[in-house]
Parts: sequence; structure tokens; C-alpha cells
Amino acid sequence: MRLSKYFIPTIKENPSEAHIISHTLMLRSGMIRQSSAGIYVWLPTGLIVMNKIANIVREEQNRAGAIEILMPTIQPAELWQKSGRYDAYGKEMLRITDRSNREMLYGPTNEEMITDLFKNTVKSYKQLPLNLYHIQWKFRDEVRPRFGIMRGREFLMKDNYSFDLDFEGAKESYNKMYVAYLRTFARLGLTAIPVRADAGAIGGDLSHEFQILAETGESTLYYDKDIENFDLADLKADIDDATVAKLRSYYAMEEEKHDADNCSVAPENLKRAKGIEVGHIFYFGKKYSESMGAKITGPDGNEVDVEMGSYGIGVSRLVGALIEANHDENGIVWPEEVAPYKVGIINLRFKDENCSAACDSLYSKLLDHGVEVLYDDRDAGAGTKFADMDLIGLPWQIIIGPKGLDKGAYELKNRRTGERTEHSVKEILEKLG
Amino acid sequence: MRLSKYFIPTIKENPSEAHIISHTLMLRSGMIRQSSAGIYVWLPTGLIVMNKIANIVREEQNRAGAIEILMPTIQPAELWQKSGRYDAYGKEMLRITDRSNREMLYGPTNEEMITDLFKNTVKSYKQLPLNLYHIQWKFRDEVRPRFGIMRGREFLMKDNYSFDLDFEGAKESYNKMYVAYLRTFARLGLTAIPVRADAGAIGGDLSHEFQILAETGESTLYYDKDIENFDLADLKADIDDATVAKLRSYYAMEEEKHDADNCSVAPENLKRAKGIEVGHIFYFGKKYSESMGAKITGPDGNEVDVEMGSYGIGVSRLVGALIEANHDENGIVWPEEVAPYKVGIINLRFKDENCSAACDSLYSKLLDHGVEVLYDDRDAGAGTKFADMDLIGLPWQIIIGPKGLDKGAYELKNRRTGERTEHSVKEILEKLG
Repeated sequence: MRLSKYFIPTIKENPSEAHIISHTLMLRSGMIRQSSAGIYVWLPTGLIVMNKIANIVREEQNRAGAIEILMPTIQPAELWQKSGRYDAYGKEMLRITDRSNREMLYGPTNEEMITDLFKNTVKSYKQLPLNLYHIQWKFRDEVRPRFGIMRGREFLMKDNYSFDLDFEGAKESYNKMYVAYLRTFARLGLTAIPVRADAGAIGGDLSHEFQILAETGESTLYYDKDIENFDLADLKADIDDATVAKLRSYYAMEEEKHDADNCSVAPENLKRAKGIEVGHIFYFGKKYSESMGAKITGPDGNEVDVEMGSYGIGVSRLVGALIEANHDENGIVWPEEVAPYKVGIINLRFKDENCSAACDSLYSKLLDHGVEVLYDDRDAGAGTKFADMDLIGLPWQIIIGPKGLDKGAYELKNRRTGERTEHSVKEILEKLG
Repeated sequence: MRLSKYFIPTIKENPSEAHIISHTLMLRSGMIRQSSAGIYVWLPTGLIVMNKIANIVREEQNRAGAIEILMPTIQPAELWQKSGRYDAYGKEMLRITDRSNREMLYGPTNEEMITDLFKNTVKSYKQLPLNLYHIQWKFRDEVRPRFGIMRGREFLMKDNYSFDLDFEGAKESYNKMYVAYLRTFARLGLTAIPVRADAGAIGGDLSHEFQILAETGESTLYYDKDIENFDLADLKADIDDATVAKLRSYYAMEEEKHDADNCSVAPENLKRAKGIEVGHIFYFGKKYSESMGAKITGPDGNEVDVEMGSYGIGVSRLVGALIEANHDENGIVWPEEVAPYKVGIINLRFKDENCSAACDSLYSKLLDHGVEVLYDDRDAGAGTKFADMDLIGLPWQIIIGPKGLDKGAYELKNRRTGERTEHSVKEILEKLG
């Protein structure tokens, strides 16, 4: 993409409304603009990153056998009246009255709607196990929206719901999602600690939050520091049961559930830290199937309430979480998997015909090799171009000016390490293509 | 995808609530389920088709130089108060009050929001022309939602907005979109007639609706029947100015704008027909930039209100429109470009080991060749499988039973023509791979 024909409205100064680095950098690098409190417009590069994250989430859901559907954003209140959550949900629910005076709401989550869908479409245990997911906008009317898209009001979430005949089946569905989540965060290059979110009750130990350690996090967790030796960000291959068992043997608990007196971890090994919640998996049994009448016929011919679990990943929030984990003083440092473009070309001398021709030519060649390129062909100074490219944070930069061209050399900069090396066009195409 | 592990809840009987064929077939083939009046859940195959349509729309927008962003669904009322449309829009606007008593709304369209975004990010004519689009859910609180997703309340729309320095530029942007729309509908295999939607006023002739002829259409148009000789569905290649000029020389006018006394078409050549509106392009000049203060600095250093146009395609509605144009008495007949899967395998004898092994093997081979396959491996009778596969409407069916296998023959059925031919595995892979 040629920057002169694109739309990346960068900002030089730190905006005063931003209090955490991801919010600052998303505004400055032109990824988002606020529309109203906690509600954002996603600009081109922000949207590309969010879509890439969504696709990784999608691939891992599909791999685990979950099936994609799409539920609407607007729900009828009656579903929530049936489940008993309509009044309980409180002011975070955006309540709406339509022109016919029907009570509606903007979905903050979809347990009720999916249970209703299941009830109307599935009748027999033979159609199970079933795990349906969607990636859809949600709305929670936060009293204090903050941290940009990290705690916005309108946000994109992947949520899915498993349906099983019995507890054993539900547990298996839960464990599949546990592994899918480990893989998803590993593919994003994130160290997300699975934290016990429920000390007992219905699900036993079947409730985990996935937390990224960050000082700006809003959750507090206690965990065995040995878990830090476990290479979570490397769990991209098949994950066997032994690995899962080992991981789950580490203590990691939400502050609300942590019981200092009965904690098995030696005090010197127990760490307390702030985390950003990016995922939550949760077994809840018959809570909704019972109240909403979602029954299936079992092998014995008798009807039973279906066993359910729900599983969420904050897709838009992950954009911010990734920046919290990948930045330096000059801007964002995108991992290749989710970078808006893999490489940026900086034309140092827009008005020099030879220089522009060399840039144009390399740009075309990279496109022909299927490389995602952002080409800064603007009529602007080198300082602005360097600063913007670092801010935007593409993994690679190719810096082209008359001096290098005289030697036939193209400077390649690694955004993360800052290392600069000189190459021929052929070498660059081999390295990046 | 194996049907035994998938989610396509087909229905045998015509649902009583459906009054047009696309609505009937979408419900029966398990593409959608109604959640509440005019609001639908998109089931797996429905979602795939909608995404494929969205991608064709996206590719043609990108090719025309438009840039994708994503605006939120919830908008602040104040934007609409500035433009003067807040009261004018009436009851079709879903109005919302948030917990802080701020007036909000679920966007029925995005002129106000994009004008506000433009105002806050673009200052100079040097950044023009600019054309921004998004594909996002909209809500219009129809008094009588009907025809399934054809006139729903929550619907998916591609809308974009062009920004230019002057009328000449705006006209060029308009013409680019006119061509992009012709290409988009041609790629979908649809004959969409560009109908003049405005007889004069601001834009001169710069307002067209794209209408698919259908008896169930809600629009009425008058047109020169010679336009039917113009092969609209073949406009996939580059479209030159002469072609555009020729197409635009045909008379085609909305009923509201049609003036029988002053119509240049000979009465015997004038046709009146019903149409389904699937797109609308519209130049509106400074209507929003003036009221909302979106100014740019021109080459002479003076500030001017930016020239704008807007362009919409009903993405979810197109799913229905495509079915209206592609079906027979047994179900849907998908064009390959948007079919949920290219081919379906019907295993006639699930309990016959050889037959199932042959089906499994062919299924794997097709997947290895990158073919999108739906494999009916259910424990069900041949009659059910034939009926469901015809209903779902994939372009090709491979029917495998013990009789054919004895001869080493696989029966290939063309869903559109009904033609059945026998082939070896190798031939099938060559034909479909």
C-alpha cells in the first residue's frame, strides 16, 4: 500500500486522554479514533491487526472442532427474563425499547440466545457434542470506560458455547477449549497464564481466566513463580495431556479466590501480580438449559437438560494487550503474525527520480512475491518518515536513499532489535519473500 | 466438512412465516433462524455465503481505491443533531439512552460519523481524493420487517463515503463506484440494472439504484427494454468509458421519478417491472460537510467544505437476492462464486464398509486438492440425503453407492442442469480440483 494514497493519521504528541501505553500508541499510530466514550472507529491498520487476531482465534476454534455462526447484536429481553438475568445484569446492559415498545438489549454475552437456538434446533444426544462460536460486537455500558479499547463499551469478542450429554462430555469440551486457548495465545506470542477463577462450586476446577502479566492490568493474581519457567508462548504444536496436567498443577488463582492460609505454595515462591484478562473459559452445567428448557433425548430415550460451558476471548482487547507486550520508546513493535504489514519502505528522497524509481521497483517486486508492504512515498522529510515508521511498528523497514543506491545497497532494519544491514534486492526478496 | 459433525438444521416443510422463496429456502436449508422480528441468527452455511459475498464486495472496493475501516454500531445522538437528521429520521432509528442518560442510537447509516471522522483527521486537499468504506451491521426499526433477511431490522451493509476537493473530483469518485458496482454484481452473476434514482436536484444524474428484477421486489422501475440485451452479468473485466456511457444512455428510472409525459422511450419499448434494490450510489455534495464543519484547505490556501458522496451495498440482502435468482423446485442452486461448499459427497450406504471407505478417501483427496467439500456421512437414508443436498444447493454432487463402486464409477451431478455423469476419481479431481 502506498502511504500517499492511504489513511494512517498519525499524531506527534501523546494525547492527554490516554493513560496507558497501548491507548497512547493506538491513537498516535492512527489505528483508532474515539467516537464517543468507550466507543471507537477502527482505522485501516487497526482493523487489519484486529482481523489477523480474529483469524488466528478462528483457526484454533475450527481446529478444535467448534463451528462458526453469527448471532445478532440486538436481543429480545424475554430471553433474559427466562434465564433470570434480565434484572440481575444491572446497568452494564444497554437496554433498548423498540418502536413497538418491545424491550430489547444490545448483547453483552450470548448464553441465553445460544441456549434458545439450541433448544429450537437440536433434539437428540446423537447430534452432540456441539460447540458453536461467533465473533461479534458486544456492548457493556461500563460506568467508567477507560484504557482505550482495553475497557471500551463496544468491543469485539469471540464467544462460544459447548453442548454435551453429560458431565464427562462437558469436561472433555472444556479441556479442548483449554488447549485451544493455550495454542491461540502462543500463536500470538503472548504469555497468558491460566488462572483459576473459581475455587469450587458447580464446575470444580473448570473455570480459568487467561491473564497476561502487565502493570496496567486490572486483575490481581497469585501464582507459583515456577510457572514462569514454563514456556507458554511456545505451545504452538500439539499439546499432550501430560503438558496440560503439568501446567494445571501450578498454583495460579484470582485474588478474590486466593486463600493465603490454605495455599500450598511456599511463601517465597508465591507471586502477586497484575494481569490483563484476555480469555475466560467456564463450565456452568445446566444453569441455562434448565431455566430455558433446552432438553435433549439421551440414549435411554429420556429427556435431560443439556450440559453447557462458555468460552470467551476479547478480540479487540487483544490488540491493546499485544501492544502492552510489544513496544519501545519509539512506538509499537509488532510480532509478524499480526503486523498490519510485514515491511515498510522508506523513500528518503521523494524528489530524486532515481531514488523513487528504485523504491517503486522494489515495492512492485515485493508485492509480486506476496509480501505485505507499506510504502512511504509521501512528499515528507526523512525525520517524519523514520518517526512514523517506528511508531507504526512494522517488523521490517527498508530504507532507500541516494547514498545507498550508489553502492547498490538497500538498508534493512529490524524494528525489534534495531539492527541495520545492507542487502541487494535479490537478498531482500529472499529474506522477506 | 463432515455433516455428522456439522450444524445444518434443515427443515422438511415450508415454514408458514415465509412468504417469498428466498426466505423459505434459507430457513429450510438451515442458513438462518429468526431470533426476534426482523433479527436473525446466521447459521454456518448462511454465514459462509454472506462472507463470500462480503469478500467480493471488498475486493472490488479495494480495486477501486477505497480503503477499509470499521465504524462502531452505536453512535452519539449529537452527531445527528448537528446534521439536522436526528428528528427527521423518525421511528426507523433505534434510539437508546445509556446509563449516563446520554442519547445514543444504533447506526442506520454513517454519513454523520464519517464526516466527523474526516473533520478530525484530514485538513488538506493534498490528502484527497479519499474514499473510506466499512462493512458493518446496521439497524433500521422497520414497522413491518418481512421477507426474512431481505427486509430485516439488523442487516449487514457495505457503505462508503468519498471526499473530494471539488465537483469534478466528486464526479470522478462517483463514476469509479458506478463501475465498481457493475463489476461487483457481475461477479455475483447478477443482472442488476442501474436505475436513475434522482431526476435532478443537487447531483444532476449522480444517483443510481442497482435493481435486480424480481416479482417479489418492493421497488418499481420503468426502463427501456433494450437494456436487457446488454450483458450486465458479463461485466467482470475492465469496463471502459464507452461501455459506461452506453449503459447510462438507456432509460431506467424509479417509478417516483418517472414522468410518462416526458419520457423519451417509445411506449412499446418501455417496460415496468418490480426490482430488489441491492445497491445505491449517491452524490450529495456539501450537505454534511457544511452542516458539520468538515472543511479542507484548497490549493489557494482557502478553506472549503469538502464534496461528498455515499455508496451502499446490502450485503446480507444479497444473500436473499441471490437465492431469488438461483433456485428451482428442489432448493437453492448456488453459483460457484458464493456457494457455501463447491461439492457435496453423498454416501448412499453408510453401513457398507467399502462404500464408506471410498467416500472417506475421496473426501480426503478433495480436501488435499483444496476443494471445499461437504460430506454427508450421516447415518440416514438415501432419500433424506438427496433431498437435503438439493435443498442446500451446492453446485456439484458426488453420489457414491455400492453399485457404482463395483464398476469403479463415481456419479457426478451438476445441481443446475441435473446432468449426471460417471467418472473415475482421477477425473473428478481434475474436474473439481
